[in-house]
Amino acid sequence: MVRSIRVVQVGLGAMGGGIAEVMARRDGLEVVGAVDPSPDYCGKDLSEVLQLDNNVGQKVQADMEEVLSQADADICIICTFSFLHEVRPQIIAALQHGCDVITIAEEMAYPQAAIQGDGEEIHRLALAEKRTVLGTGINPGFVLDTLLIALTAACTDIERIKARRVNDLSPFGPTVMRTQGVGATPEEFADGLQDGSIVGHVGFPQSMYLVASALGWELDEVKEERKPIIAEQRRTGSNIVVEPGMVAGCNHTARGLVDGEEVLVLEHPQQVEPGAAGVDTGDYVDIEGTPGISMAIKPEIPGGIGTIATAVNMIAPVLSASPGLKTMIDLPLPRAVLGDVRETVKQLQVAHDCTS
Amino acid sequence: MVRSIRVVQVGLGAMGGGIAEVMARRDGLEVVGAVDPSPDYCGKDLSEVLQLDNNVGQKVQADMEEVLSQADADICIICTFSFLHEVRPQIIAALQHGCDVITIAEEMAYPQAAIQGDGEEIHRLALAEKRTVLGTGINPGFVLDTLLIALTAACTDIERIKARRVNDLSPFGPTVMRTQGVGATPEEFADGLQDGSIVGHVGFPQSMYLVASALGWELDEVKEERKPIIAEQRRTGSNIVVEPGMVAGCNHTARGLVDGEEVLVLEHPQQVEPGAAGVDTGDYVDIEGTPGISMAIKPEIPGGIGTIATAVNMIAPVLSASPGLKTMIDLPLPRAVLGDVRETVKQLQVAHDCTS
Repeated sequence: MVRSIRVVQVGLGAMGGGIAEVMARRDGLEVVGAVDPSPDYCGKDLSEVLQLDNNVGQKVQADMEEVLSQADADICIICTFSFLHEVRPQIIAALQHGCDVITIAEEMAYPQAAIQGDGEEIHRLALAEKRTVLGTGINPGFVLDTLLIALTAACTDIERIKARRVNDLSPFGPTVMRTQGVGATPEEFADGLQDGSIVGHVGFPQSMYLVASALGWELDEVKEERKPIIAEQRRTGSNIVVEPGMVAGCNHTARGLVDGEEVLVLEHPQQVEPGAAGVDTGDYVDIEGTPGISMAIKPEIPGGIGTIATAVNMIAPVLSASPGLKTMIDLPLPRAVLGDVRETVKQLQVAHDCTS
Repeated sequence: MVRSIRVVQVGLGAMGGGIAEVMARRDGLEVVGAVDPSPDYCGKDLSEVLQLDNNVGQKVQADMEEVLSQADADICIICTFSFLHEVRPQIIAALQHGCDVITIAEEMAYPQAAIQGDGEEIHRLALAEKRTVLGTGINPGFVLDTLLIALTAACTDIERIKARRVNDLSPFGPTVMRTQGVGATPEEFADGLQDGSIVGHVGFPQSMYLVASALGWELDEVKEERKPIIAEQRRTGSNIVVEPGMVAGCNHTARGLVDGEEVLVLEHPQQVEPGAAGVDTGDYVDIEGTPGISMAIKPEIPGGIGTIATAVNMIAPVLSASPGLKTMIDLPLPRAVLGDVRETVKQLQVAHDCTS
């Protein structure tokens, strides 16, 4: 059996830490380095930080370059920031040390749609280094793009697609509450949108253009709208109470137009205790076409563990892919890799073998 | 722009005819030949047979070899039989004439699971001819395997998967009614299972082993069971009435075991007028794992148009794939190809380019 796949985890927050924990117990994977400058983690044993039973024998370090130069890693999982220009230096460092890259940075799910797009630069460097880069996650990366796209394979014609991801912010912390405007007055919400302190969902343009690219739609325009969800009843989160009349969350929508026609509508209302307003959480895709397809996942696929899972499960497809910056529509059908990851890499390499 | 993709359609039944009709109006595709020995079609204009507005200028011919030797085709869509040993000669003929192949033969969705397995022979020939072969369709090919597998990508751990495709046989003709045992007495149903005249669903082993292969499960065993669905109320189909006490359909289930544990349960109850018994038609996937995922598509994706769509939509992935016998888990994320098919082929070729 070939040596274990050597992984470096960059960023040990809720997502990065969860990914490292899952990787540590996957057959065929070895966590050979962990990077996080935070004093909570830096210098500590990774096993201690992740509360692992088995000791992976790695200390968390602050300096990514230093870790990469010692780790002889095959792939680097980057879970640090949301935006392309923020993760760009880390992706470049990983590529220059000969690593493939998976990142959950929302903008990297389809960098071609990024405002400060460095997708082309990263693609060229990945080609030069003969390495592969992928952005993924639950949303963007799966529910409102990859899964939706897979469903369209059963359609001959499509007039319009509407998809909705309805989740519950109750368990989340102060940062999420603030960026979604939870607890604000309607006036504060409006001001927050103005000054950019309230952002709603990050990733709609990525999902929109990923779907359009997969289906062969030329979008003229993507319209985004963020509206406050005003509580009519008192709503209670883990660390916040929203009184009636205050903002319980942000209903963020995006509309994609082709020749002036609305063909793709994505909706992501994020709020505290939606049940109080009789709202069922869930992931919904409605395809108006031939045939019409109406899909519901209730409750919604949880965002945290879903992002952790997609990142870990895409390791084998990325390792077996051709070089360059890839998206979820470039790679083979995603799947849970429950066995030895090296076996799936081998299986996919055989399936893609261009030399045969 | 490169020349149109030249397609030969083999078999013009409900599925093959529908596929040819959709291909005839797809940008970038040209139907350059049609094969069907049936006197209903043979010798007639394909446009007349398909009731097309535009004249594709092809006469339906009986002899596949003759059509292929004249057509200079890129790909051949074979919709003639269910079993591998039946479609084998047609697949071999297509490969020897330099065509890629898509077939809806159920056993070809995962030939490795076929009883009379010629998958290896077809794979070797496809490699030698540098061509690609794929088996697909709605089921097997999509609902109980491809779509189910895509959903698992959001899971870190899976204990068990149960999936159910509940459909309505009411619109189908005598052949389907007979092979599902509709209208039989319970005794006749039991005898029909014995003598093989009642078969239930064709394709469970293919879906089972495709899922297992994707997830990295080693199945010790697949148990199939066919039970009569006895009508408690009168049920009415387009050409049949089922009185109470008679068989309204076949509930066909398959169970996959790993180390004696049931990990994958697929159920496909096919019956006339399920609504009469208060049964909702639909496609259901329940993943017991981390996270648990419960998906419902109501009503079910229609089998006919769904099979037509998956076959046409997989043309671009097949044309851009490396040589060999492929399955749905070897190819990129499936999608509706609504634009020029040549553009999607180019897009996928760039994404897979091994030379870069």
